[in-house]
Amino acid sequence: MGTSAVVLGVDDNGTDDAIAQRLRDLGFVAGEPVRIAAHGPLGADPLLVQIGYTRFALRRAEAARVRIALNEAVTTIATAAAQG
Amino acid sequence: MGTSAVVLGVDDNGTDDAIAQRLRDLGFVAGEPVRIAAHGPLGADPLLVQIGYTRFALRRAEAARVRIALNEAVTTIATAAAQG
Repeated sequence: MGTSAVVLGVDDNGTDDAIAQRLRDLGFVAGEPVRIAAHGPLGADPLLVQIGYTRFALRRAEAARVRIALNEAVTTIATAAAQG
Repeated sequence: MGTSAVVLGVDDNGTDDAIAQRLRDLGFVAGEPVRIAAHGPLGADPLLVQIGYTRFALRRAEAARVRIALNEAVTTIATAAAQG
């Protein structure tokens, strides 16, 4: 249940984005596996997100800063080049 | 021309994989944008890959170690959660 993905980075919303910095401090950094728990009705806030053994409740505005790639979309350079 | 992607990591092939370590030393680390140049006939070797302003010619066995996500597959936690 839920969606597995890899964190690519956290985007700043303007300059000195304290929320983005806080997310990075919490462990939302490139390469970290993340699980997005199944959610309630559309627009449910906060979202339940897990990195390692730690679960975070993210507001939607926070979750929108975290760039990810779904595991199902992960490939390798060799495969991508072959499909070119 | 070519494919834009983000590096997720380099997988070791067994223990003490010197090639994998070398790729990480060269800059193939999580979060780095990478471009995979258009390639020749299927199976062409080496592949031309660019990180920042530096171009690398990777053998296919090296390119197979580098996990990536295509830019077109990049999303955010908020969007992924909304799509369930």
